[in-house]
Amino acid sequence: MRTTDATPVSTVTTGPIEGSSKRYEAVTGAEHLRYPVRRVHLSNGEHFDLYDTSGPYTDADAEIDVEAGLKRARDEWNRPEPIDGAATQLVWARAGIVTDEIAYVAAREGLEPEFVREEVAAGRAVIPANHRHPESEPMIIGKAFAVKVNANIGNSAVTSSVEEEVEKMVWAARWGADTLMDLSTGRNIHETREWILRNAPIPVGTVPIYQALEKVNGDPAKLTWEIYRDTVIEQAEQGVDYMTVHAGVLLRYVPLTAKRVTGIVSRGGSIMAAWCLAHHTESFLYTHFVELCEIFRKYDITFSLGDGLRPGSIADANDEAQFAELRTLGELTKIAKSHGVQVMIEGPGHVPMHKIAENVRLEEELCEEAPFYTLGPLATDIAPAYDHITSAIGASIIAQAGTAMLCYVTPKEHLGLPNRDDVKIGVITYKIAAHSADLAKQHPRAQERDDALSRARFEFRWNDQFALSLDPDTAREYHDETLPAEPAKTAHFCSMCGPKFCSMRISADVREYAAKNGLDSVDAIEAGMAEKSEEFARMGSSVYLPVRAI
Amino acid sequence: MRTTDATPVSTVTTGPIEGSSKRYEAVTGAEHLRYPVRRVHLSNGEHFDLYDTSGPYTDADAEIDVEAGLKRARDEWNRPEPIDGAATQLVWARAGIVTDEIAYVAAREGLEPEFVREEVAAGRAVIPANHRHPESEPMIIGKAFAVKVNANIGNSAVTSSVEEEVEKMVWAARWGADTLMDLSTGRNIHETREWILRNAPIPVGTVPIYQALEKVNGDPAKLTWEIYRDTVIEQAEQGVDYMTVHAGVLLRYVPLTAKRVTGIVSRGGSIMAAWCLAHHTESFLYTHFVELCEIFRKYDITFSLGDGLRPGSIADANDEAQFAELRTLGELTKIAKSHGVQVMIEGPGHVPMHKIAENVRLEEELCEEAPFYTLGPLATDIAPAYDHITSAIGASIIAQAGTAMLCYVTPKEHLGLPNRDDVKIGVITYKIAAHSADLAKQHPRAQERDDALSRARFEFRWNDQFALSLDPDTAREYHDETLPAEPAKTAHFCSMCGPKFCSMRISADVREYAAKNGLDSVDAIEAGMAEKSEEFARMGSSVYLPVRAI
Repeated sequence: MRTTDATPVSTVTTGPIEGSSKRYEAVTGAEHLRYPVRRVHLSNGEHFDLYDTSGPYTDADAEIDVEAGLKRARDEWNRPEPIDGAATQLVWARAGIVTDEIAYVAAREGLEPEFVREEVAAGRAVIPANHRHPESEPMIIGKAFAVKVNANIGNSAVTSSVEEEVEKMVWAARWGADTLMDLSTGRNIHETREWILRNAPIPVGTVPIYQALEKVNGDPAKLTWEIYRDTVIEQAEQGVDYMTVHAGVLLRYVPLTAKRVTGIVSRGGSIMAAWCLAHHTESFLYTHFVELCEIFRKYDITFSLGDGLRPGSIADANDEAQFAELRTLGELTKIAKSHGVQVMIEGPGHVPMHKIAENVRLEEELCEEAPFYTLGPLATDIAPAYDHITSAIGASIIAQAGTAMLCYVTPKEHLGLPNRDDVKIGVITYKIAAHSADLAKQHPRAQERDDALSRARFEFRWNDQFALSLDPDTAREYHDETLPAEPAKTAHFCSMCGPKFCSMRISADVREYAAKNGLDSVDAIEAGMAEKSEEFARMGSSVYLPVRAI
Repeated sequence: MRTTDATPVSTVTTGPIEGSSKRYEAVTGAEHLRYPVRRVHLSNGEHFDLYDTSGPYTDADAEIDVEAGLKRARDEWNRPEPIDGAATQLVWARAGIVTDEIAYVAAREGLEPEFVREEVAAGRAVIPANHRHPESEPMIIGKAFAVKVNANIGNSAVTSSVEEEVEKMVWAARWGADTLMDLSTGRNIHETREWILRNAPIPVGTVPIYQALEKVNGDPAKLTWEIYRDTVIEQAEQGVDYMTVHAGVLLRYVPLTAKRVTGIVSRGGSIMAAWCLAHHTESFLYTHFVELCEIFRKYDITFSLGDGLRPGSIADANDEAQFAELRTLGELTKIAKSHGVQVMIEGPGHVPMHKIAENVRLEEELCEEAPFYTLGPLATDIAPAYDHITSAIGASIIAQAGTAMLCYVTPKEHLGLPNRDDVKIGVITYKIAAHSADLAKQHPRAQERDDALSRARFEFRWNDQFALSLDPDTAREYHDETLPAEPAKTAHFCSMCGPKFCSMRISADVREYAAKNGLDSVDAIEAGMAEKSEEFARMGSSVYLPVRAI
């Protein structure tokens, strides 16, 4: 498997996330399948189960051998026969088949398999699962499901190594990345990807044009369909689950970017623009698109139709170039689906808040509601070093409007490549955006976690608050900066107000008082309170008032 | 002035922000007034002027003496006579007077003084400027103006010192805080506030009930109107510009919070709730509200009507308790305005995205469009240690909907008190939210900064990109992590793609090509491109293709 001279990966992060343990639950109706759950153990004896993306790395008895790769579990799953040459979740779902992958993602999402099958059959959701990536734990991307998060990693000619990239993948999955894109552009592209795929419990995406460009020594004009096709097949054989293809960058769209403030900012888009101009020929990705479909349908690779002309600044948002390309992506969506290939659509970029909804509306109209997969968008250009935040604002809004997966942005966006810490910050920030959108969409299970954490907060169960949070380690660390002592973890106060006065405790007292006196509406209060006032004053003196309650 | 035994403040941060210099521009029509501007000097010889909140601390020749305090510049400004006992911007604006403060803020905002006067007269905007805080540089809060950011600081019984708090104030203003709230609850409340006010170039707000509570040794039941009133007068004399008053927490609303997940989370709200229940009497803040107005109108203190029953969790958002209080704040707004007192309204808290707009709609309806001043809101509860981000999402959306000022949230929210680094992260994060909203509201000058920065980015003017950003120091630091050498600051590539391939450069080439050939629309392209293809191929070989262009 590994013909590489790259240094072997020595260690990756393993072990459970604080306050929780990893479990595997049987899939109802398909008991040979077991899906992962992270169980948070609460101090009141209850527990709270969370969707888990982290793979076997967080198992209590994890025995990870990155040289050998993860267990190829999906090799043992049932796989239906191809239909008219296509072996994809799309054609099977259309044929009414509930595949093992569908049963598995339904269990993970807490939904009925038949509902999942319908969404996949309609092309409103995709399950990126290359048959040659049997190490992956299938997941689903679609607006009817929890919003997903993608993490980009990858070395460049300037920086980073294979080991770093594999650890970044494990680390991203640990903190909640649902998929991973390997965007390497430097040396050892093939080997880096091989290490990542064999150890990735989450689907892996790539942009094959990057590797194709390496093969022609970085000169876009020298690219050919044949070089590109061979690169796609090479990556397909390795198990890449979805591929970004910038087939919507047509020759006639390129000059539409000339008057932009920031021109073409997509690497893939600019490679294809340079190629089209150099040859004055239509993009080979567009003219050979059906041949690509024929490759993708064999492996069940999902198209991620790239937005090569996405805006790179607020000034360029929603312009003619961007939407011209989106219309072409709509055409290509129909072609891909007619060949049985799963499709999602990539989106911007940089968009001010008031122009975000239009992107989703148009995408759904033009692309038959194929899952939208956006990069942010950044709601302003003026905060390099904080673009995880500028983009989380846009990401939350676009996800609320219907985007199915968000590509994270790290604090290093526009400035450098993310290191391991940046990857974690990017993932957590995007889990916030995705979850905020799930809440706003009133996704059935979303608010349960907020309520569990808020109850823990209200009841001063500090350890439970940490364990239920997206990043228990950092929450604990920040708390301990001011109140490090272990008794403070159960103290009925915190460092914000100090022990003498605490609003949370006062309102706990209010609750107890109201419950005892049946005061739960304005009417009840007006009727009942007068007679209770003396009693309250007594209770208040001995129980409620904070100074004395310590 | 200082009767304190607190340790004197030794040093605060001074000097210009990287890449810029401080200037003072004369106010047109009121040349005795000069307002501050931060001028960013660009490498192409141009400059870009920014709104400046930092005070004299960023002057090139800053001679700061924190013992003496800042110059009392506003003591020399014109001040109209009181009208019916009120000496406020509101009554003067209603009388058609363009005060010096109005002329000054109009110049800062780049708007006509008459427009500013109308907004203040209508109560849609406030200028918090206590006559006894002559060190402050007036600013305006209203939905027709740039969205403002407040930073909270303050010690508690558990942590932090006077010196730290003064430096936090200077530091917050340096990074863009428009106002500051001193929320100290521990020792030396009076002295801390005195040091802050005498050195604050921005308006300062407080929550007087905190200090009143200290005077009764932390027992809410022992509070009286007289103790509270004397505290308000003490703070008014010191120069506090606006005060949070939780006068909407009525006795009959308190039990409405009993079934909440997180009860009452506002400190002021819970103090008043405890008082109301203990005495079974209506809140003295409500029953003595007119007397408060009579104090406020003399100093021109602005009411910040507190949302003592704001939701502290997603579960409690937009509930009966919250909106009952808001209706009472609407009543109080009318009373305050009838006494000539400026008013703004505080808002939540924790609200999922789909429930945010309703808060603004109701506030505007009930409170006659008095400026809305919200704390976030946090769009989810599940990310302690990242609540600057969860709340920036909500803050951006609520500001787009019409909120005039955003109270920042730092990474330490719910966990501890913010240190100096947290203050900066909180301020920058909220500048992002405020600016994103300005863009979405299509505020006249907002996009100019995005465009200037994006042009710098596109043209590889790295130093200009840093200088135009909200945090030049961190942007530079992140860039330098991977490409520290000085030549990289002008290199036509960055560490993301490396020198061999750069999408930004390719699109610069596209632009040059299109300009030369008049290709700026689909029609022009189809007509003109065919004949130009040979020419482009020639140019491409020698100029455009990135490998050779190095």
